[in-house]
Amino acid sequence: CISQDIDHILETQSALAVDLGGTNLRVAIVSMKGKIVKKYSQPNPKTYEDRIALILKMCSDAACDAAVNLNCRILGVGISTGGRVNPHKGVILHSTKLIQEWSSVDIRTPVSDTLHLPVWVDNDGNCAALAERKFGHGRGVENFVTVITGTGIGGGIVQHGELVHGSTFCAAELGHIMVSLEGPECSCGSRGCIEAYASGAALQREAKRLHDEDLLLVEGMSLKKDEQVTAAHLISAAHLGNSKAEAMLQTAGAALGMGIVNILHTVNPGLVVLSGILASFYQNPVQQAIRQRALSSAQGIHVVISELEEPALLGAASMVLDYTTRRTY
Amino acid sequence: CISQDIDHILETQSALAVDLGGTNLRVAIVSMKGKIVKKYSQPNPKTYEDRIALILKMCSDAACDAAVNLNCRILGVGISTGGRVNPHKGVILHSTKLIQEWSSVDIRTPVSDTLHLPVWVDNDGNCAALAERKFGHGRGVENFVTVITGTGIGGGIVQHGELVHGSTFCAAELGHIMVSLEGPECSCGSRGCIEAYASGAALQREAKRLHDEDLLLVEGMSLKKDEQVTAAHLISAAHLGNSKAEAMLQTAGAALGMGIVNILHTVNPGLVVLSGILASFYQNPVQQAIRQRALSSAQGIHVVISELEEPALLGAASMVLDYTTRRTY
Ligand SMILES: [Ca+2]
Ligand SMILES: [Ca+2]
Ligand SMILES: [Zn+2]
Ligand SMILES: [Zn+2]
Repeated sequence: CISQDIDHILETQSALAVDLGGTNLRVAIVSMKGKIVKKYSQPNPKTYEDRIALILKMCSDAACDAAVNLNCRILGVGISTGGRVNPHKGVILHSTKLIQEWSSVDIRTPVSDTLHLPVWVDNDGNCAALAERKFGHGRGVENFVTVITGTGIGGGIVQHGELVHGSTFCAAELGHIMVSLEGPECSCGSRGCIEAYASGAALQREAKRLHDEDLLLVEGMSLKKDEQVTAAHLISAAHLGNSKAEAMLQTAGAALGMGIVNILHTVNPGLVVLSGILASFYQNPVQQAIRQRALSSAQGIHVVISELEEPALLGAASMVLDYTTRRTY
Repeated sequence: CISQDIDHILETQSALAVDLGGTNLRVAIVSMKGKIVKKYSQPNPKTYEDRIALILKMCSDAACDAAVNLNCRILGVGISTGGRVNPHKGVILHSTKLIQEWSSVDIRTPVSDTLHLPVWVDNDGNCAALAERKFGHGRGVENFVTVITGTGIGGGIVQHGELVHGSTFCAAELGHIMVSLEGPECSCGSRGCIEAYASGAALQREAKRLHDEDLLLVEGMSLKKDEQVTAAHLISAAHLGNSKAEAMLQTAGAALGMGIVNILHTVNPGLVVLSGILASFYQNPVQQAIRQRALSSAQGIHVVISELEEPALLGAASMVLDYTTRRTY
């Protein structure tokens, strides 16, 4: 009937976006313009079976919500996940221990079979870069790099407007660029990776170490009983004049900056977008490392802070929104 | 007349290739199949004027030789030079002190005006990668990286069959990937670059330092009066059981290997071609560094030794041979 046809036309074309991180499993309905219409969050289950079951349930519920309550037409599902991903096959090849039982996993088939929708998958770093390309600082920039400093460090590289995946989908594993022959141990099994120096987890590790030696808290700081020591405490301590905390943050910033200089000397992007919770903290140290250690030809690079609130979700959605409008799958 | 026409048909289609290094200025006539028909070499002059004059003279002489004596038809001139190059404009943007007075130099215009031939220019590392793509291990390989370990360290990155130049022509400056927050000083002004650890010049510096402390020569080695101490002496000393020399080479190999792992984690090529005089020495240390420090997804990479005798000249020639057969300029 006619009223249904008109309703259909007035629906908002949208994507289901899934963000699968170390802690939470999140699903969102994202409109064509990048508006997050609704978000759903659950703790990420520890086993493969529970995780897949929850993904399917959350996606089905969200798709239902979209159709019944929100008048959103879901064009497909975009999944952002930790780990190395083969985006052509929709398979997670390998994850570190942050997400257990999450290697050699075909995520596309069960989601596509259950929801009867096309499904795209890529890793969180690449999704963050896609989000910048469609909705952020990367719009219209031919070559840029996104570096996300959160619990870990991830990233994505866009060249000639397209993600660089590499020959075994291991490109842009920017957290595992090494800046020291020795250096702190990394979750990947190597050492001296920028993730082991400058990630939220690395700063938390250093904060805990200082606290264990009773060297963290200075005047103006206190910890409640049972309060977790975090990276934020290290940053507060440094601001309040704790010279050991300051030295650690300086090393972290120098390490991240050197890692980014290495990226400049390898792919020479025109823009670096810093994203994640520690982005604004690291902007100055990164710019300083570039001034001190980059080749003169690479000095002109811009280092900006992402303005996107949900890079992983927006990037996951952009895979759906870009491809369905191009009508290729 | 008819005999002239037939002569013309039987001419070998060729390129003039120029290799402009820190020490020598070389010109070669290179056939379509990658055969070096004839080579000419002179010391590279120290000033801009003398250098340009010599390039023009050597190219003119070679073109004359090609036409009169060698029955080669020269299709164009390809120039490989140290430094950062804008290949679209044929301009050398910046060189380190190895080649003096060689920044902001338009090399294309004078060569093209004098020889009345199209001219292509790129840096030596990129030319080496082009040589592998056309004549070497890179044939048919979509994504590969060439790392040249000679006096310095250079390189080139091929992605989707094309060189990566970057937004300011500073991509693939692989010698200046840093693997240490501190580390030895580099000619670029930074420190801890793989060039400062593992280049021929770096090994020579370490050999001299050991020799100055009377710690280089061991049983079975001798130095003639006035003989220069070189990287080769360090390698010999290590082979003959000099543990200090051995430790230095181990550090050099580890540093180069880590730099290459950083490349794998950034662009994830399917193949690494080691080129230059130290290539075969470094193959094992690089493979070991990959086994120890690369992500599992990057472990499958092949590391091979270039079989090309003249990568810079062949790469310079390939710019001419590829473009003139495609008839684009
Ligand atoms: Ca990534
Ligand atoms: Ca290069
Ligand atoms: Zn790591
Ligand atoms: Zn350097």
